[in-house]
Amino acid sequence: MEHQSWDDWIRASYNPEFSLQCGEKLAQLFSTHLNRLQSEQREFQAWMEPDENVRNAESFLAATANDSSLRKIDFTVGSGDCSSYGDLVEKFESAIKICLEKSQGLHHPLCAGHQVPASLPLAGWFDALTSLTNQVQGVYEMGPWSVAVERAVLNRVGLELGFDEGRFGALVTSGGSLANLTALLAARQTQFPEVWGSGVQTRSTSPVVVVHEDAHYCIERAVGVMGLGTKHLVRVPVDEERRMSVEGLTRVLSDLRNREVPILAVVSVAGSTACGAFDPLSAIAGVCQQFGVWLHVDAAHGGALRFSESHRSKLDGLELADSVVVDAHKMLFVPAVCAMLFFKEPRHQFAAFDQDAPYLFDPSKPTLASYDNAVVTMECTKRASALGLWGVWSIFGKSFFGALIDRVINTAEQFYLRLKQADDFEVWAKPSCNIVLFSYCGNSSDGHSELFDDEFQLRLRRSLLERGQGYLTQTRVAGRIYLRSTIMNPLMEERDLDRLMQQIREAARELRAGVCTENEPVSATPTQHH
Amino acid sequence: MEHQSWDDWIRASYNPEFSLQCGEKLAQLFSTHLNRLQSEQREFQAWMEPDENVRNAESFLAATANDSSLRKIDFTVGSGDCSSYGDLVEKFESAIKICLEKSQGLHHPLCAGHQVPASLPLAGWFDALTSLTNQVQGVYEMGPWSVAVERAVLNRVGLELGFDEGRFGALVTSGGSLANLTALLAARQTQFPEVWGSGVQTRSTSPVVVVHEDAHYCIERAVGVMGLGTKHLVRVPVDEERRMSVEGLTRVLSDLRNREVPILAVVSVAGSTACGAFDPLSAIAGVCQQFGVWLHVDAAHGGALRFSESHRSKLDGLELADSVVVDAHKMLFVPAVCAMLFFKEPRHQFAAFDQDAPYLFDPSKPTLASYDNAVVTMECTKRASALGLWGVWSIFGKSFFGALIDRVINTAEQFYLRLKQADDFEVWAKPSCNIVLFSYCGNSSDGHSELFDDEFQLRLRRSLLERGQGYLTQTRVAGRIYLRSTIMNPLMEERDLDRLMQQIREAARELRAGVCTENEPVSATPTQHH
Repeated sequence: MEHQSWDDWIRASYNPEFSLQCGEKLAQLFSTHLNRLQSEQREFQAWMEPDENVRNAESFLAATANDSSLRKIDFTVGSGDCSSYGDLVEKFESAIKICLEKSQGLHHPLCAGHQVPASLPLAGWFDALTSLTNQVQGVYEMGPWSVAVERAVLNRVGLELGFDEGRFGALVTSGGSLANLTALLAARQTQFPEVWGSGVQTRSTSPVVVVHEDAHYCIERAVGVMGLGTKHLVRVPVDEERRMSVEGLTRVLSDLRNREVPILAVVSVAGSTACGAFDPLSAIAGVCQQFGVWLHVDAAHGGALRFSESHRSKLDGLELADSVVVDAHKMLFVPAVCAMLFFKEPRHQFAAFDQDAPYLFDPSKPTLASYDNAVVTMECTKRASALGLWGVWSIFGKSFFGALIDRVINTAEQFYLRLKQADDFEVWAKPSCNIVLFSYCGNSSDGHSELFDDEFQLRLRRSLLERGQGYLTQTRVAGRIYLRSTIMNPLMEERDLDRLMQQIREAARELRAGVCTENEPVSATPTQHH
Repeated sequence: MEHQSWDDWIRASYNPEFSLQCGEKLAQLFSTHLNRLQSEQREFQAWMEPDENVRNAESFLAATANDSSLRKIDFTVGSGDCSSYGDLVEKFESAIKICLEKSQGLHHPLCAGHQVPASLPLAGWFDALTSLTNQVQGVYEMGPWSVAVERAVLNRVGLELGFDEGRFGALVTSGGSLANLTALLAARQTQFPEVWGSGVQTRSTSPVVVVHEDAHYCIERAVGVMGLGTKHLVRVPVDEERRMSVEGLTRVLSDLRNREVPILAVVSVAGSTACGAFDPLSAIAGVCQQFGVWLHVDAAHGGALRFSESHRSKLDGLELADSVVVDAHKMLFVPAVCAMLFFKEPRHQFAAFDQDAPYLFDPSKPTLASYDNAVVTMECTKRASALGLWGVWSIFGKSFFGALIDRVINTAEQFYLRLKQADDFEVWAKPSCNIVLFSYCGNSSDGHSELFDDEFQLRLRRSLLERGQGYLTQTRVAGRIYLRSTIMNPLMEERDLDRLMQQIREAARELRAGVCTENEPVSATPTQHH
């Protein structure tokens, strides 16, 4: 193609009218999609094997701009002719349609798997503004308003968590795993500042990290990443509700202290990933204070319960922690990712990293440096990701988040009651929040209960997923596999719970029928595809 | 408020019609915004001090849903009445308007600072789909199509970089800093696998990381994070164009080898942050091969030049590297963040982390695990961020990226020529890509050249920024401060370069006038606000 011709394509690609048409089309397609998902006119997911999906996605990349079907475009910039970009918009429409068709329908009422919300469409549109204007953070001047929005949100969420107004540190980063790593880096730097420059090997005894038995895998990962060695992770036993045992913690810390092993931090959880357990934070904070140990609370899932009048007491003592992670993209119902990290001591927010980057920070105005996020976050070019939370809060107000939280926890409690009452389900325990663990055990006519073993639960879950009629996850608690449901859609109603249970029963029946008919050993039977 | 009433608000917030109205409004507002920026009807940024911006952003958070102005909403779901959400949409409109007004206008033709592109609006709309549907990665089933899209893009970009089809490893992560850390973790794990479990202190001698003198600060940060100690970073000298010296590298590696110091990796750059220098990769790869050392290339900025017929030779030898980082949110013109990490050896993509998470990975279908991103990326809940690149590629074709790259590099070359010809500018060197370093030095009538010192350049840049009439960054190269321009807007034309230079001259004049009038010592004069 001629150079001139490429210039035309470039101008077309940045044309405001073209952008308008794409945006309006997206708004229409998403609205239709949302409507169909909410009214169950489609499956929550049209299952396809990864290889096939990848081949399909790759086939789109053979397209070229000089495709003859695009020849009708009028390149007169600002011509105001709404139809001139028709062919390009048509291509956009087909691509968006396939993306919607093949996505996981988190807004489907039977989608109740991971801790990923049916995100608020309004939050999505605010977040879209970030994508369109490409506001980034790292230095304040690159995205001044988005930095301000982030600070505003952090200031207010910090207050909700119970920290003193204007007297805590906070940042937003790309996910809970990164936030937990950043917290542990700050704890390391504060207590063992020589490690940054000289390395872990300068210490004769490696510091240990003392963690909740069910801590998210990212804590162990952080310890590995930081070069401390994952064998220096010490797990504290849990009680029968899988909350950290206060006695257990005291014993572990005493033992470490007696052996003169340095302790980097205690990591407690508020809303454990496996089952949503909340640690007794006040008591744990007391023990940590007694031993002079940094307390980090991974409240990625549960921290938001502070917004609920009914459930906030589960977080009593949270404000005593040295650092706390809360993911807005979980229980504040905004799209991923917007992970918030709080420090009780403001100076700790500057502890994790300690460096100089001459092309970033402007020595002619040092007062700005504390607003330059690259100083406090792992990311340099950081997506502005708090706009969704700010937007929803601005329009619906703070109490709205409490209402959303109350809804999903109430639904989880209803689910627990239904599962408990049903003959053919076993439920692990009354949920602490919106995570329910259970298993399908068949009823008396189904014969031996050993048929419904761990492997059956796994296959049942997969079958349900591939049927597209319901989404659960699985987890292992105390050596046994459970089906795991996280209620993350505030529109989920009681009739949806009945339907979900019905879908599980049907999947179980088909699975058992398949096993009997084909007479294959269970362990080798592939899951069915629909 | 009554419980029932909150349920109404919750239903309203998820209503497809409400979403449609917000989306259409956003499309209109952004189109107008883009048009005004492109035609310079507004400043690239309306400067405001952070404290004031934060106060402003925080004032929005006092809103509540039971605001009397919102009482007119008809909560009949699916009533189809387009006006029923009017008040909410009006609130949305005001919030979006302020966000647009206060954002940095990367699409303004005089915005030429950081390596952050005037992103393609089309890419923004594809990215918006991620925000709306909340497709996340971590496990394939959570965002099957977005995982597939990511793989498809990685497969094709890897081919462009020169890796063998289907025989390399790759992943997408949240930014170049995280991608570089992930690469170095893989290098550490591959060569020193005992560190993950036992810690850096198990080694009597810490491994060192050998880096380009101007390597991005995230490399030093990664070394600090990994517990290796930043003093174990060895810098290789550069030549006068600030490319890594091959002789220097050989000398450093020989010396380390002689002293039996283990070498974790050599980090080379392709498009250095400071000035856009490209290392002689073939020669460097040869040296690394000779010493049996892992070569990592930080091609976050420059890697995309492989898409340009005219410039791809600058990356000769890139395919010999063990790991390579390329940021699509730089020279592929998509919004932040979409950082890609490639490994020559497929198995290395699984090396950085090594763990078990029972609630994520499904043992009933182990073949899926290689599509479960949490295994290979730091993030667990990971935003699906490759949709923008896939969408633009699908619609405009691969060669389009080459055209965009050629455009901005050509503009940078034009800028260099203009600056060189002008009496009152000094330019550092002919640009290697789209980064131009220069300083304002006044002309003969301006008197002593010592007035135009480092500090003057810094204040000049800040003044320009706060006037909102042009955006540059600054950097220190070989001990001297330069103004730094990165041409990241393919619509920037030669007349814009003239205008930018004119704006710099005016800012310089005002700055000098201010200094003379007020007779304050230069070092204490604050920058001016407009």
